[in-house]
Amino acid sequence: MDRPEPRHEEGRSPGVRGRPRSEAVERAIIEGVMRLLEEGVSLGDMSIERIARTAGVGKATIYRRWKGKEELFVEVMRVVDAPDQELPGESVRDDLVVILEGIRHRGLAKRSSALLQSLLAQAKNYPQLWDLYHAEIVATRRARLTQVLKRGIASGELRGDVDLSLMADLFTGPLLTRTILSHDAPLPDGLSETVVDTVIEGLRT
Amino acid sequence: MDRPEPRHEEGRSPGVRGRPRSEAVERAIIEGVMRLLEEGVSLGDMSIERIARTAGVGKATIYRRWKGKEELFVEVMRVVDAPDQELPGESVRDDLVVILEGIRHRGLAKRSSALLQSLLAQAKNYPQLWDLYHAEIVATRRARLTQVLKRGIASGELRGDVDLSLMADLFTGPLLTRTILSHDAPLPDGLSETVVDTVIEGLRT
Repeated sequence: MDRPEPRHEEGRSPGVRGRPRSEAVERAIIEGVMRLLEEGVSLGDMSIERIARTAGVGKATIYRRWKGKEELFVEVMRVVDAPDQELPGESVRDDLVVILEGIRHRGLAKRSSALLQSLLAQAKNYPQLWDLYHAEIVATRRARLTQVLKRGIASGELRGDVDLSLMADLFTGPLLTRTILSHDAPLPDGLSETVVDTVIEGLRT
Repeated sequence: MDRPEPRHEEGRSPGVRGRPRSEAVERAIIEGVMRLLEEGVSLGDMSIERIARTAGVGKATIYRRWKGKEELFVEVMRVVDAPDQELPGESVRDDLVVILEGIRHRGLAKRSSALLQSLLAQAKNYPQLWDLYHAEIVATRRARLTQVLKRGIASGELRGDVDLSLMADLFTGPLLTRTILSHDAPLPDGLSETVVDTVIEGLRT
């Protein structure tokens, strides 16, 4: 699948003012950005005017929903990303596996989607967008992971003497290395389980 | 230190033909590339002719040493990089710490050197150079790490049932995440030891 279906998630779009929302309109705008990306228009060259024309809406309709281009692009990045799975919330080990599976699946999606690759590569060279992407999406995921680790320390499943942020990197680092720093490192089924089970062994009380 | 001193290491420059080598000439050429980089000339815009003029040598002098621009740039990347420390070769744990310390020190050097940052950022967007850098430098480091892990399996210090490449990523992933994917994640003294001691716990026989 080279073009991920946009998903709409209630209440996740920032900048929505009082008006009743129309999912169809938002979808059309986000699809407009994706269509322009597919046509090879870079994010830097994409104007709100052109997005509006492509989506068949007025510029004001876009500005009513997003403060500016960067906010809209982050929404596009959120929509094309594989959604974060809900955490079972029982064993810390199982929650960690779900989180690592999220990284693995996003890595696999990126490898199979030229659109996603181009979007991420462009975002990286667009500091304002990259910072916003980190603040809105990456930081949220990291906070979720930190919560799980804290729960593990509280329950005695994890040692309390290792820095939380380092603990997070110990679990996610191997997966991030394979998905972000490499184009072809293997991402087989079972990888997340092996990483969690190995690392957790060194972090047991 | 914003401009690392070039180091010369015997026998590491590829493409040297029969002639007696002149370290001073090689040094001048490598410094020429660094001077141009500092002046803001991009690798893509740097011609052998311009490098030769800057270094005060003839073009043939460069071609006698390197097949082309990419080979010369990889040599520059090798020279500005922190050198790989020799491995004590006794306990596998101690060798792993030395290898992780190499990643940590290269990360610290990159943060303090604008030249190194610019060189790496440019190399990343220059696929031919990036591939050569990986083949010549990164792959060599990875092979060294794999040798240490194999020794650990042979000696019984490490389990034999985890894929070698995954084992390598378990040790290096947390450090690479902090040095390559982040600009400001902490890289304190003792980090390498903590990572090795934690991960090795999950990999013991």
